[in-house]
Amino acid sequence: MQTYRLEGQGGIDRLALREEAVPQPGPHQIVVRVRATSLNRRDTMILNGTYPLTPRPGIVPLSDGAGEVVGIGDAVTRFAVGDRVTGSYFARWVDGRMHPGVVDQLGCTLDGMLSEYTLLDEQWAVRLPEHLSWQEATTFTCAGLTAWSALTGAEVPKPGQLVLVIGSGGVALFALQFAKLAGCRVAAVTSRAGKADRLRALGADLVIATAEIPEWGMKLREATGGIDLVVETGGPATFVQSLIASSLYGRIVLLTVQDQKGKAVEIPGAVYQRSLATIGRVFVGSRSALEAMLAAVATHRLRPVIDRVFPFAEAREAYRHFQQGDIFGKVVIDGA
Amino acid sequence: MQTYRLEGQGGIDRLALREEAVPQPGPHQIVVRVRATSLNRRDTMILNGTYPLTPRPGIVPLSDGAGEVVGIGDAVTRFAVGDRVTGSYFARWVDGRMHPGVVDQLGCTLDGMLSEYTLLDEQWAVRLPEHLSWQEATTFTCAGLTAWSALTGAEVPKPGQLVLVIGSGGVALFALQFAKLAGCRVAAVTSRAGKADRLRALGADLVIATAEIPEWGMKLREATGGIDLVVETGGPATFVQSLIASSLYGRIVLLTVQDQKGKAVEIPGAVYQRSLATIGRVFVGSRSALEAMLAAVATHRLRPVIDRVFPFAEAREAYRHFQQGDIFGKVVIDGA
Amino acid sequence: MQTYRLEGQGGIDRLALREEAVPQPGPHQIVVRVRATSLNRRDTMILNGTYPLTPRPGIVPLSDGAGEVVGIGDAVTRFAVGDRVTGSYFARWVDGRMHPGVVDQLGCTLDGMLSEYTLLDEQWAVRLPEHLSWQEATTFTCAGLTAWSALTGAEVPKPGQLVLVIGSGGVALFALQFAKLAGCRVAAVTSRAGKADRLRALGADLVIATAEIPEWGMKLREATGGIDLVVETGGPATFVQSLIASSLYGRIVLLTVQDQKGKAVEIPGAVYQRSLATIGRVFVGSRSALEAMLAAVATHRLRPVIDRVFPFAEAREAYRHFQQGDIFGKVVIDGA
Amino acid sequence: MQTYRLEGQGGIDRLALREEAVPQPGPHQIVVRVRATSLNRRDTMILNGTYPLTPRPGIVPLSDGAGEVVGIGDAVTRFAVGDRVTGSYFARWVDGRMHPGVVDQLGCTLDGMLSEYTLLDEQWAVRLPEHLSWQEATTFTCAGLTAWSALTGAEVPKPGQLVLVIGSGGVALFALQFAKLAGCRVAAVTSRAGKADRLRALGADLVIATAEIPEWGMKLREATGGIDLVVETGGPATFVQSLIASSLYGRIVLLTVQDQKGKAVEIPGAVYQRSLATIGRVFVGSRSALEAMLAAVATHRLRPVIDRVFPFAEAREAYRHFQQGDIFGKVVIDGA
Repeated sequence: MQTYRLEGQGGIDRLALREEAVPQPGPHQIVVRVRATSLNRRDTMILNGTYPLTPRPGIVPLSDGAGEVVGIGDAVTRFAVGDRVTGSYFARWVDGRMHPGVVDQLGCTLDGMLSEYTLLDEQWAVRLPEHLSWQEATTFTCAGLTAWSALTGAEVPKPGQLVLVIGSGGVALFALQFAKLAGCRVAAVTSRAGKADRLRALGADLVIATAEIPEWGMKLREATGGIDLVVETGGPATFVQSLIASSLYGRIVLLTVQDQKGKAVEIPGAVYQRSLATIGRVFVGSRSALEAMLAAVATHRLRPVIDRVFPFAEAREAYRHFQQGDIFGKVVIDGA
Repeated sequence: MQTYRLEGQGGIDRLALREEAVPQPGPHQIVVRVRATSLNRRDTMILNGTYPLTPRPGIVPLSDGAGEVVGIGDAVTRFAVGDRVTGSYFARWVDGRMHPGVVDQLGCTLDGMLSEYTLLDEQWAVRLPEHLSWQEATTFTCAGLTAWSALTGAEVPKPGQLVLVIGSGGVALFALQFAKLAGCRVAAVTSRAGKADRLRALGADLVIATAEIPEWGMKLREATGGIDLVVETGGPATFVQSLIASSLYGRIVLLTVQDQKGKAVEIPGAVYQRSLATIGRVFVGSRSALEAMLAAVATHRLRPVIDRVFPFAEAREAYRHFQQGDIFGKVVIDGA
Repeated sequence: MQTYRLEGQGGIDRLALREEAVPQPGPHQIVVRVRATSLNRRDTMILNGTYPLTPRPGIVPLSDGAGEVVGIGDAVTRFAVGDRVTGSYFARWVDGRMHPGVVDQLGCTLDGMLSEYTLLDEQWAVRLPEHLSWQEATTFTCAGLTAWSALTGAEVPKPGQLVLVIGSGGVALFALQFAKLAGCRVAAVTSRAGKADRLRALGADLVIATAEIPEWGMKLREATGGIDLVVETGGPATFVQSLIASSLYGRIVLLTVQDQKGKAVEIPGAVYQRSLATIGRVFVGSRSALEAMLAAVATHRLRPVIDRVFPFAEAREAYRHFQQGDIFGKVVIDGA
Repeated sequence: MQTYRLEGQGGIDRLALREEAVPQPGPHQIVVRVRATSLNRRDTMILNGTYPLTPRPGIVPLSDGAGEVVGIGDAVTRFAVGDRVTGSYFARWVDGRMHPGVVDQLGCTLDGMLSEYTLLDEQWAVRLPEHLSWQEATTFTCAGLTAWSALTGAEVPKPGQLVLVIGSGGVALFALQFAKLAGCRVAAVTSRAGKADRLRALGADLVIATAEIPEWGMKLREATGGIDLVVETGGPATFVQSLIASSLYGRIVLLTVQDQKGKAVEIPGAVYQRSLATIGRVFVGSRSALEAMLAAVATHRLRPVIDRVFPFAEAREAYRHFQQGDIFGKVVIDGA
């Protein structure tokens, strides 16, 4: 079978395509024929050596993959051959709080999905909703679950409350879609005015082009009475405006803590002095959160936004396209 | 002006229509021209002397009323003449927890809405969404807010989670509608099979006629994997099945604690032994919850279900219709 | 080595002492030399066949045991030989919510502690605080953690709030002690007036003998302003008074859902109508809760109350003593 | 009677002593003979014109005051002459969330306590525990309640968890004391090594002198396994170390959002990337929180730490002493 492996860090040429034997399952393992994978920012950070966690040498990259169970170990009880599955980002994290025993990540410290077949412990996988194509089904593991956890992890917003999303990356678009499912109003800001219509088509009630209104925080606060929940994927570039936009008891889920040059987020004193906003974080989510998200996705037959699909042989092109940054939704790679 | 007053308790003939002077506002008061009112079970209990709180003698009944501000006191800042408003059930309860200082209720210990005009402290009223007719706008104060608090008071259910509603009274239908706003799946049980279609039309994903399936609790649990939140308006008649239907960590908001003969709810030991379900209650809600609900109603342009509308002169007929029990939605009385 | 096994259910003569080989650890297992065990009500229910879960035939009974690690498998990383450990009641439940994958219980579906040696997966055990003797250390797994979860599982009470405990069994006394650690005031009710002084000595601020004041609920409510949290171990015999004693927003953790004759808890309508109290449950607790409890125990050098200690050879006598019911604290059995 | 009034902002000479008539109560008001007052940082900010809220011209300063009710209005029901009372910082904020209708503050937009007598709405005051002297009783309104809210406002820490306090100001010492009441372990950092013993005497389990260990964050994390709750009164000077010291799910209550030169807090990206810590704030607290705190204070007969007491005539000296900064506990001014 064909498998990509990361032979060192430092750029796209470290991504090597290898021919290997199809893996055989241990007693508690399943073999998955991968039908599609997708890219996240963490995958380019792992590629470039800027990810806070050191990947295992020679790792198969990518956390996101969807496929079919084609073999199972003797002791497997959760799955049968033919099941459609995807992996859980922190493979060993089942529920509750994260702790040092469950930090392993698919595509970083555990072999990931950019392979013709992959071997997973049966505890590391979950079933997929039936309405999703392979290309759609592969997009939820990292960006989808991050958005879901940002929205539902601490306190679920009430219908009619306001959620702010930033940009048009995978997390932002999932957050927009999930916030609409929850009956919230959604404000979206984008640095590219040309994307405003597509954000509105996804359900955004209010879109601001940051180039036109650099001080969009006060604008949003005035227009809405204050944002209840910010899914902050912009980091230092947008944090101050996000805080200004927040209502007195707003919550900001800070997913980008520094920019690519290492610039950190600064909390403006004059603004925060008058605020009771809470700043928090999420780390993707547990398997139990993944299951809850997929239940919501199934209920609403929600479909993710796909920016572009690449064939398996052009995985490196997919990385390049993702890294150049001007995307709208998920970048997908078909299975081998 | 024309005003109904409750001259004693004990039945419909205690409801007397009087001619009185239009009230003048004190400094912090507003005068409201009432355009529509609606009935709740507590109003018939107050009428019949079975309500746990003793009404003030000669009270103007009904908590639910919508109307127009036609006069304001000198110190009023929250409203202007022409504003469309409704009252807050526990008029003095602004936010946070209920306490003995805020127990006064419109239509029980404070004059209510079944009057041509009513006088309210400006703190006791809130603005109405614009899309609602007067008949629609009057229905939210008691049943609407009770359903909203049952759904959002403790922990907001996540999209895709399961909510169970019971019957077709005001609270049940609002709970159904609000649960759909929040992206939940809704199961409904009804003792009248003929209402199943109307429940489905409102969004119920699954409807069970209790006459056909008396052991509907297990049926629901098997069909859904377990209910996450039960809005329990059935009381002793349905509680056991509701508990059986609940998921391991289900929540039951018990709104009817005994039936009309005083029969209490019993917790079946064999079922509860295997359950971590929580049983809780709500008391309508605070003004701040009322505002949050109306924000959601406005966002979604939600309209309540109205069973029937009576003219002001036929208020007693409205009570009689409400009491006979076979209703679907709110019973409304037009303004004088 | 000597091991007790439960050869069928139905009474104390099913508890058979056997001579077996000392177990050898698998790669992820540890061998524990058990130094002391203790009894809980569930152990007598398992013995008598009244426990809701069916025990595995021939099981080694008792969830509670403390001992020394005397052997470890090759892959063990959490423990070393010489470590002092105790087991986790739901051995596979690490954190978060309980789910069907983690229901196995020591001493019921997994071999328990009433044995000279026991074999545990390294994930099933935790380290013990240093200040505890073996007899003390063995008492926390079931009753201690149940009390801890009742107090801290949903919402930790604030210093100065009121906690009610019922009787003088293991859970009640741990709840009393933990509530005092948390700065709460504690009321205790007991059916045996002779125990009042011992309850006071443990820190109870207010003790009521139920024989003297059968309507103790109102008495407590008047004396305290209302109980914030009831650790309800009395079940149908005390629930009504517990509810009456509760403050408006009180919480009742219902640990006994029916009495030994199967009588269920009934919620008195006239009382609950005026109450916003929440009724909930706990199932012992996860390993992570066990660790949090033991951290608190270590911080405060807390020692459990031991009723009586039996030698290993007299395990049957220990069961008999426990079952007759007049105990104050934990019944302990020394290791072989 | 003698009254201090703030005649403009800009420094201590704006604090003028005036002779005025003793106030007479309106129907819902009480007259309080002030026996002691105390100073908070906000009082010096109000004096110097650096407080975010503009004080009412000619205001009587200070939120903190304790005294005796010497006169009541006709409609007063909460108090009788002779009652010992203190004021609520946000006088109109009873419970729940803060909103624009309840922002008035004693000693800023409402007349405060630095006066022989003061006039309060009966809703603005609460009863004092009996064990406190006047000098002690006056210290809780601002610093005490801020510390209490920081500890109990969002989620009460469990016994055995770790709380970090910074410095020896009023809030830090109350936080230390309240955390001990709640059964927590307390770490304290101080820039003045000479204060370590006094912090230990108050119950601090671990004290670090920041001058000796500038990188105290990692030191604390290693020594404790991570702080669960930081009461962050240090602001930009200590925030980075506080975040480093925090456990994975730690919480930081940020009470100082910028230093006196306006320098803001920066969130170090490399640290926060590996953290799920939450950053939040509190605004003193509501009357209901004040009552809960005083109940805990009464239960434990807790006494505050008083740095120094000044006579009423030397109020300006008290301000000067407070402003120079080297204090340990509260600075108190006796009543006139």
